[in-house]
Amino acid sequence: MLALHSFFRSGTSHRVRIALNLKGLTVENHPVDLRTEEHLADAFRAINPQALVPVLSTGSHHLIQSPAILEWLDETYPDPPLLPADAIERAHVRAMAAMVGCDVHPINNRRVLMYLRSQFGTDEAGVNAWCGTWIGAAFDAMEQMLAADKHRGDFCFGGAPSMADVYLIPQVESARRFQVDLSAWPHIMSIDAACQAIPAFAKAAPSAQPEAG
Amino acid sequence: MLALHSFFRSGTSHRVRIALNLKGLTVENHPVDLRTEEHLADAFRAINPQALVPVLSTGSHHLIQSPAILEWLDETYPDPPLLPADAIERAHVRAMAAMVGCDVHPINNRRVLMYLRSQFGTDEAGVNAWCGTWIGAAFDAMEQMLAADKHRGDFCFGGAPSMADVYLIPQVESARRFQVDLSAWPHIMSIDAACQAIPAFAKAAPSAQPEAG
Repeated sequence: MLALHSFFRSGTSHRVRIALNLKGLTVENHPVDLRTEEHLADAFRAINPQALVPVLSTGSHHLIQSPAILEWLDETYPDPPLLPADAIERAHVRAMAAMVGCDVHPINNRRVLMYLRSQFGTDEAGVNAWCGTWIGAAFDAMEQMLAADKHRGDFCFGGAPSMADVYLIPQVESARRFQVDLSAWPHIMSIDAACQAIPAFAKAAPSAQPEAG
Repeated sequence: MLALHSFFRSGTSHRVRIALNLKGLTVENHPVDLRTEEHLADAFRAINPQALVPVLSTGSHHLIQSPAILEWLDETYPDPPLLPADAIERAHVRAMAAMVGCDVHPINNRRVLMYLRSQFGTDEAGVNAWCGTWIGAAFDAMEQMLAADKHRGDFCFGGAPSMADVYLIPQVESARRFQVDLSAWPHIMSIDAACQAIPAFAKAAPSAQPEAG
């Protein structure tokens, strides 16, 4: 059985939970509490030398890095697919995923914000401004791409959730936490509403995790 | 014919050049000068609303985001492959790529360093320390993974360059630019030497680009 080592509020863990739910997969839940720095302990480093969540354990292997885990899930459990069949369309969906996965999330990640606080003395307003800058830059561009796609249904691409939604929804959740005003991105907001109506997304939310307590 | 819009010193552009060379593909070169902020001009925003290099133009489409471009290249020009055939091995190679592509490069990117300088008054030593922190964290973990892989040849995985090397080598180049002492990572250094000996890598180096001047 698959086992997911994750933290309820981690955006990358949230992504993987959505994908697992969309694929209809049940996993063992191994919470790793970032607040008590459980991820920095030797026990966790033994399964991920990078000391970051999530890790998906297959029984024989510990898979790390959510982009790699998500591609593995889509290759190994292809139904329903998270990527279109056409190569150009796949590139489009993967580009939207990478806009969040590379150019927003890692810059706003816990360890980076800790560095800002400890090395630059950044306060909470400064942290929110920092996070809002990178979220805004990517969401502005994504909003433009979504508005330009005339074949789109209720989601980032086509008529069903894809890899792009798997990345986007946790980032919207994170934007709310950083007090970002989301009203400038109506297409993104509408996709968020469409996704939240689907149990695979709703059940993956941080607040829906047993350890969110 | 494919056309690459890129900047010689951009790490994400460097990645795509390596992959194009490994695939034996010739492209039209469209330099975008980040120093004069050509990427922020309307002409460039019209092909990439995110205003970031690289963009790979296929004639009918402008592909953005290097992770999406690289997957598209590997799907469209499968020989030689940049990913192994086995799903678990693919996840391993993609994880190493993402360690650089998500957890190092975007945090050290030009726009982020500009923010540090303008908002926090960070000086060059501070910028180098920032960059060195994220490079060091990822390289420490990758070094451990490389050392643990007993089936590895001269590269990140197996006996030929893969997606992981495509990401790693530009990051090593960037580490040198930020004055990072690389001696702590002998496996990474040895992979760098093996890659530099291959024309596909050597010809992709920033200093080898005509516009490097």
